[in-house]
Amino acid sequence: MRVTVLGSAAGGGFPQWNCACPNCSGIRAGTLRSQARSQAQVVVSPNAGECFLLNASPDLRTQILSRPFLGPAYPPRHTPIAGVLLTSADVDSVAGLLHLREFQPFHIYTTQSVRRIVCEENRIFRVLDRAKPPVVWHDVPLNAWLPLGTVKLSTGELPVRYRLVPLGSTYPDYVSEDLRQSLPPGEAVVGLVLGQGSKQLFYAPAIPGLSEEWKRWAQSSDLCLLDGTFWDENELISAGVGSKTAREIGHIPLSGAGGLLKEFDSAKRVRRVLIHINNTNPILDKQSAEHREVRDAGWEIAYDGMDLDL
Amino acid sequence: MRVTVLGSAAGGGFPQWNCACPNCSGIRAGTLRSQARSQAQVVVSPNAGECFLLNASPDLRTQILSRPFLGPAYPPRHTPIAGVLLTSADVDSVAGLLHLREFQPFHIYTTQSVRRIVCEENRIFRVLDRAKPPVVWHDVPLNAWLPLGTVKLSTGELPVRYRLVPLGSTYPDYVSEDLRQSLPPGEAVVGLVLGQGSKQLFYAPAIPGLSEEWKRWAQSSDLCLLDGTFWDENELISAGVGSKTAREIGHIPLSGAGGLLKEFDSAKRVRRVLIHINNTNPILDKQSAEHREVRDAGWEIAYDGMDLDL
Repeated sequence: MRVTVLGSAAGGGFPQWNCACPNCSGIRAGTLRSQARSQAQVVVSPNAGECFLLNASPDLRTQILSRPFLGPAYPPRHTPIAGVLLTSADVDSVAGLLHLREFQPFHIYTTQSVRRIVCEENRIFRVLDRAKPPVVWHDVPLNAWLPLGTVKLSTGELPVRYRLVPLGSTYPDYVSEDLRQSLPPGEAVVGLVLGQGSKQLFYAPAIPGLSEEWKRWAQSSDLCLLDGTFWDENELISAGVGSKTAREIGHIPLSGAGGLLKEFDSAKRVRRVLIHINNTNPILDKQSAEHREVRDAGWEIAYDGMDLDL
Repeated sequence: MRVTVLGSAAGGGFPQWNCACPNCSGIRAGTLRSQARSQAQVVVSPNAGECFLLNASPDLRTQILSRPFLGPAYPPRHTPIAGVLLTSADVDSVAGLLHLREFQPFHIYTTQSVRRIVCEENRIFRVLDRAKPPVVWHDVPLNAWLPLGTVKLSTGELPVRYRLVPLGSTYPDYVSEDLRQSLPPGEAVVGLVLGQGSKQLFYAPAIPGLSEEWKRWAQSSDLCLLDGTFWDENELISAGVGSKTAREIGHIPLSGAGGLLKEFDSAKRVRRVLIHINNTNPILDKQSAEHREVRDAGWEIAYDGMDLDL
């Protein structure tokens, strides 16, 4: 399975349009040893002829254009993108669906709750209904292996299975109180497990830390792309750009007790990659102590254009 | 007034992610004499220290980053973008508001109907309420001059006035039947007139051709950025990518009787620029007869990064 990182930053991207924190100012001025990053977006290509987006980032149009293999194969209109798997109803995860409004049929896989939030309270996404046939939403149960794929496999190609892992957390603030009260808490934020043959990928760009479920799937996978949003629990407060802690907005930090580095210090042969990195995170600076600490602990730091083979 | 074209293409951009029409294939292959274009976006900077976006395109994040003068002036967070004027509730016009979700106060000016569509039927845009103070929506009446500007002017700077011109057309398909029936038809699509001193700009990326109102404002302006979506009434049908005519989706074509070139063949000193150019439009090819015809008629063709001084 080919796994391509099209975007590696948290919401807002790096630099963020209105941010003049040391990282954002440094990357604009060319003085920071780092690289610009668009908002987190991954695409997996398990077999020839079709691929699947993991979430739909607000930067999706330019992200698709950045890779020729995602372009149409024949005129007048075509895409190898067969579907989109959504981990939440956050703007970061769903806004890019509006980029896909060009009368193109495809499939969306997510929890019933995320589908209800997007479809019942946000009529603008009905632009996806104009495709012929219309875009199809699939209500996916938690904790079940399901087949993924829409094309007939060639000799030597292996079927793909996927699974939604509940990670806790809350629904986005924009959801109405009425709808929120009718939604089960476990469907707000999920991790994605994709399996093909003996290989397994785990994708969790937001780990709220409210359950331990993610660890089991991270440990049993060959490749993990995990929540690298914040280095420190109080990062936004210290930077003067927010009033909430990392955990209050649904992300365990990398450092400290209960942080990702301590919680998932795998000795096994799991390839561990940090993604969804906020613009305030010091690991973005290749010359920082935090960057070195992460690399010394065996983690990789995702960048736009990173290719990962599974 | 500084007028900057950040994006010049119609919805989908050029190339469009799923399109393999001759233009899109040619630009991908590097064989077409043209340049890639993001979705229509203009920013005006009438005075030092503040600027206004004309619509909020789905490509807005990268468009803002493309111009250093749109970056923050001081830490931790700041923007010179004081407001956004919206011409419709189409995805092309409003999706970019989601890029502006980063806790940043600003103002949105549009018709009451567009505000109601966005705010009442699309809760996701409530992410703009998280700013302190929250983003402010202004219900703007049609056909009235109003002051635009939020900062105190320095010596020599002139105040700016703006005006919404009703252009006819219909509300987007995604709007509910209930809401649609309560909205006055004149507020669906507007043109924007901006005046400063003796200078005037007219912006109308969609001219449905249902009224003649646009002509008066185009003729009395110094600079017009007008609907260059389609060359031909049947362009989408001929290209095999749609079943509707140009007028059926709210755009008079450039060519033919009743087309923009014939309808606005100004002999006056009006600078006329085509914007919101669809990827199927032959004027995108600098070697085409249609490109030459447009240029010979005295029109300019907008491109990303075009600077226009007024």
